[in-house]
Amino acid sequence: LPGPTYVLEEVRQAMTKPMVGHRSAGYKAFYIELSKKLPPLLRTSGEVMVASGSSTLVMESAVVSCAASEVLNLTNGAFSERWHSISKSCGKNSDKIAFPWGEAIDPETVRAALRRKKYDVVTLVHNETSTGVASPIADVAKVIREESDALIVVDTVSSLAGAPVETDAWGLDVVLAGTQKAIAVPPGLTVFTLSERAVERAGKVPHRGFYTDLLRYLDKHKEGGFITTPAIPLLWALDKQMDVILAEGMEARWARHEALYRRTAEWAASRGISYASAENARSVTVSCLKPPAGVDPQAIVKKLAERGITIGGGYGDWKPTTFRIGHMGQVRMSDLDALLVEIDDILKGLAG
Amino acid sequence: LPGPTYVLEEVRQAMTKPMVGHRSAGYKAFYIELSKKLPPLLRTSGEVMVASGSSTLVMESAVVSCAASEVLNLTNGAFSERWHSISKSCGKNSDKIAFPWGEAIDPETVRAALRRKKYDVVTLVHNETSTGVASPIADVAKVIREESDALIVVDTVSSLAGAPVETDAWGLDVVLAGTQKAIAVPPGLTVFTLSERAVERAGKVPHRGFYTDLLRYLDKHKEGGFITTPAIPLLWALDKQMDVILAEGMEARWARHEALYRRTAEWAASRGISYASAENARSVTVSCLKPPAGVDPQAIVKKLAERGITIGGGYGDWKPTTFRIGHMGQVRMSDLDALLVEIDDILKGLAG
Repeated sequence: LPGPTYVLEEVRQAMTKPMVGHRSAGYKAFYIELSKKLPPLLRTSGEVMVASGSSTLVMESAVVSCAASEVLNLTNGAFSERWHSISKSCGKNSDKIAFPWGEAIDPETVRAALRRKKYDVVTLVHNETSTGVASPIADVAKVIREESDALIVVDTVSSLAGAPVETDAWGLDVVLAGTQKAIAVPPGLTVFTLSERAVERAGKVPHRGFYTDLLRYLDKHKEGGFITTPAIPLLWALDKQMDVILAEGMEARWARHEALYRRTAEWAASRGISYASAENARSVTVSCLKPPAGVDPQAIVKKLAERGITIGGGYGDWKPTTFRIGHMGQVRMSDLDALLVEIDDILKGLAG
Repeated sequence: LPGPTYVLEEVRQAMTKPMVGHRSAGYKAFYIELSKKLPPLLRTSGEVMVASGSSTLVMESAVVSCAASEVLNLTNGAFSERWHSISKSCGKNSDKIAFPWGEAIDPETVRAALRRKKYDVVTLVHNETSTGVASPIADVAKVIREESDALIVVDTVSSLAGAPVETDAWGLDVVLAGTQKAIAVPPGLTVFTLSERAVERAGKVPHRGFYTDLLRYLDKHKEGGFITTPAIPLLWALDKQMDVILAEGMEARWARHEALYRRTAEWAASRGISYASAENARSVTVSCLKPPAGVDPQAIVKKLAERGITIGGGYGDWKPTTFRIGHMGQVRMSDLDALLVEIDDILKGLAG
């Protein structure tokens, strides 16, 4: 499943503790400990905050808080296109550069756009869950920095904790990710960073709202708490899962995801199944695949569901032609192998 | 504790089921069943939706979605004042009528204000958790309807499921409440209604954002789902707790809260403890109290905490002079009696 992904039993059980006050000394101490575990995940020496809401909330909040007016949305799939909708819905002047679905964002095309017009914010999606494409964020960010002083705001929803995301080294201003994908916590929380540049720039944006004001999160975070009552049980789950992630180690976790992707790619090649994403742009966390000729991808999804197994159908425009295997979060090689055996069995039936 | 309140063990356990896809047929069926349980809670024949986020999110969303420009905030405590901050932070022209802390909103004062100026939206808080005051929403709403066509947007965070809230009978346009108070679910969700009038009016507001666009919630709700990935475990908890609430019955639940309030009031009177809220404006879900002369309320809170018991300190400006007993949610008379015995014991020590 490309998400919400499987959540470990111990992480689910962490949610069941008796409720506590979120302004209590005990909860504040808990939050401060949790806060120390998040910067290594996002590879930053800065602060990492947690919003109670889905990634879309923080995508919107980043635009509302950081963009005085001009926004450039780089799109190559459903979620990056959503960001363009969000920007327009907030009343910002929003342009988009639309790369074809299945292809990565091209840095040189971005360079040309930045030479034509000045932007306050550029938004991009690291890993398009809809198409299984990973874009070269480091290269794109470098170009944006060279050509402009636009803030670089990145959705890493389905890459963070599965593939390298280097907030500081790549010079990213806002990095955000819902916790229900490769982080493998139940949905409802979004972690995010805010660079010093972003803080300074947001300070000059007049109407940042309240729940959408990222500076308000930072102020409260520095006091050891939240802007409003947080989703307490989900934070307990995140804390427990961060112990799991840090015990595995970021590099080991990335390597495991890389291995899961390679296994999937080898299997696909040997079955006449092709990737819908360009070869130089494949995500290590989700494979978006075209079935062998004559096989309906929706039939594969349906027959797996009958066996109690969920994979992703194609997303949006790609629904009739693709299916998606999520190999992220706590997925082990043995889990993936078992899934591929089931798909083999179904393909045999559909071809026969 | 005035919230988050105690959550039943069975409700907490409902959160631990293995994760599922929020677009799956099974989850959609679950959501449709849950959706049938919510209208009786809000006493409406209309739709009730659920946002993943705290009440503040929906307070902001209601202003963003429903107010073209002019907002009137009726304030009489910390949370109603927050709504004024929210309205201004969203760039709306916002006036406030500030009633004294501890007093209810006065309908005739509101009438006079509505005769002076035309508003798109009037915001009010039914039950001010900060001061233990309940305002006569039915009367205020009647005046607003008589004098204007402003939408009536009501925060019922600490009254819903504890005291009568009659969305349809009182003619309320948006009613919202976080689920962590009298509803007694862990924090992270907010339920809300949207009248036909509100839908029509919001349709003419140009920039409603995305996560803050209440019409988007309604559209997705009608399809049997959510605008984005919802906080799935919390929705399982809400579903389980709605069974508990509907089994008790709304009227019986209100009567239980009324009895808890009366018990608290009798106890207070016999101990020389006075209410900080006006006599005609007392909340049945939270009592905001002034200790006997010479006793520091913060000492009571601290000594209870040493015994492992949490009550609320005073809020904001009232921190040095008041303390708050939350008697809402799943609190039983025996729980309240046990608490009052502990407070008696502490008062004896502090007086001695």
